[in-house]
Amino acid sequence: MYRIGVDIGGTNIKIGLVDETLTITDRSSIPFPHLSGEEVAQQIAAEIHKLLSANSLALQDLESIGVVIPGSIDPTGSIVLDAYNLNFHGVPFQAQLQAHFDNIPVFLANDADGACLAELGRGAFVGCRSAVLMTLGTGVGGGLIIDGKMYNGGQHQGVELGHMPLVAGGEHCSCGNDGCIEAYCSASALKRDGIRAMKKHSDSMLFQKSGGNEDLVDAKFVIDCAKAGDPVATAVFEQYAEYLAYACVSMIHLLDPEVIAFGGGVCLAGDFLFDAIRKYVKERSFFRNQAKIVPAVMGNDAGMVGAAMLSRNA
Amino acid sequence: MYRIGVDIGGTNIKIGLVDETLTITDRSSIPFPHLSGEEVAQQIAAEIHKLLSANSLALQDLESIGVVIPGSIDPTGSIVLDAYNLNFHGVPFQAQLQAHFDNIPVFLANDADGACLAELGRGAFVGCRSAVLMTLGTGVGGGLIIDGKMYNGGQHQGVELGHMPLVAGGEHCSCGNDGCIEAYCSASALKRDGIRAMKKHSDSMLFQKSGGNEDLVDAKFVIDCAKAGDPVATAVFEQYAEYLAYACVSMIHLLDPEVIAFGGGVCLAGDFLFDAIRKYVKERSFFRNQAKIVPAVMGNDAGMVGAAMLSRNA
Repeated sequence: MYRIGVDIGGTNIKIGLVDETLTITDRSSIPFPHLSGEEVAQQIAAEIHKLLSANSLALQDLESIGVVIPGSIDPTGSIVLDAYNLNFHGVPFQAQLQAHFDNIPVFLANDADGACLAELGRGAFVGCRSAVLMTLGTGVGGGLIIDGKMYNGGQHQGVELGHMPLVAGGEHCSCGNDGCIEAYCSASALKRDGIRAMKKHSDSMLFQKSGGNEDLVDAKFVIDCAKAGDPVATAVFEQYAEYLAYACVSMIHLLDPEVIAFGGGVCLAGDFLFDAIRKYVKERSFFRNQAKIVPAVMGNDAGMVGAAMLSRNA
Repeated sequence: MYRIGVDIGGTNIKIGLVDETLTITDRSSIPFPHLSGEEVAQQIAAEIHKLLSANSLALQDLESIGVVIPGSIDPTGSIVLDAYNLNFHGVPFQAQLQAHFDNIPVFLANDADGACLAELGRGAFVGCRSAVLMTLGTGVGGGLIIDGKMYNGGQHQGVELGHMPLVAGGEHCSCGNDGCIEAYCSASALKRDGIRAMKKHSDSMLFQKSGGNEDLVDAKFVIDCAKAGDPVATAVFEQYAEYLAYACVSMIHLLDPEVIAFGGGVCLAGDFLFDAIRKYVKERSFFRNQAKIVPAVMGNDAGMVGAAMLSRNA
């Protein structure tokens, strides 16, 4: 039996044919059409049929279809409450896609939750009963594995770990609150702090390599300058790693997970980043067995694999 | 059938006879003897036998014996790792008490976890599948209910929610880290901030009623001055309530619990405190269904009732 995993983003819809070992055996991608939920469902259904026939498969070879979207889902797992990039607000997408498939159950979830499930199935969380995923991008998303399953909130409103206060009263966050993990641990936060430091220190590599042009300063640029030994960039980077460690300590002292994985482009910094996080966590947590802190491994396939796994989590 | 719940503290050992409805039908108390684990177990066993015969009950009327202690327990639930008030370090207390009772299972847990379980059984969490208890005292303890059960950490190292960072880089905490929830939300933190404000404002009621004597300023004193309308005490109190709200927001955005309950003497402030917390949570969380924020109700019986419930949680 196979399962279909659909990862809807604001740019593309990725569709994967996923086998019993959670391997994507074939895939396709179509542009996200920016149309109504019904029309998007129609296009996805057509693409699934194409993918099946290209693989000489029929609907009865499918166990389930799972969809992940970048937004919030209602507690019953059927309605997209708000997905800003898709312009879906109150869209009953589960039913809209289900309408195209009689006997195959369709599941819907948030993409960060799906990514967490993918790490559990085939990635950094294999064999874990408890784990935390934090994805460091423009914002900070993530998910929880508790007791071997994806945790979707006690009231099924999802996990918004990027909006846990980390420095109460601190930097303003896009959510309206201040001091959130996202305001200190996102790639955008590293970029913001890099630009501030660049402006303050015209003798820094940050300034000299960017010519003082803040458009050239992003998270990767700050990390590269730190790697090259620039003391100003190093201070920014160390502070960033320390905030990531504080976020880890929060998870450790509350949930005591076996593994904490970080995803997102920032993690390409590799051990340069992870060793720093681990050092600060060791200093700041008093638990004897601290969570392993590792990179997420599922990358761009996380959404499709996680979507395909939704039936198992249900 | 009955169960025995034992609540060991640094001053007294309280023993409750608990019936099927989780009511304590009889109880006794002995001073904590500050002896070895074996000798403490011996005294508890003798006291249990007394309590049974006073109630015309025999050992076969007992389903289980549960013990809660103020300290950390190993992942198997048998060894007290560190209980500073009891001077128990690496004490195999479960086995030491079990040795006195052939066919009755003995359970051991942390007292904050027990209190959480008591709220689930008969208190603020009845009917909940997800809840958070925070006890505001010298420190901040607490526990989690996840999926209808006491959560003891993914690696069974317990829940230390008082040591989640709330203001990373902020006030020093007794645990060695800085900025913990405990350093902002404990009764001690309110007292500390009250004393600081008293010293700074000799025209405040805080100063005038205490005569500038910091020994007279504690959490209750600060709250009483705020209730009486002192602007300096009110500012300290509002800041305290706001930190409690930040701590709630942390729990809400990570775990989305149905209920958050606060225990400890500070809660005697009643709605004066709870209304303030609720106001700030409403401002700072974007979840549609926010956790109910309520006082814990089990008070001094929490330990015994929670201890008696350990067999059900196992």
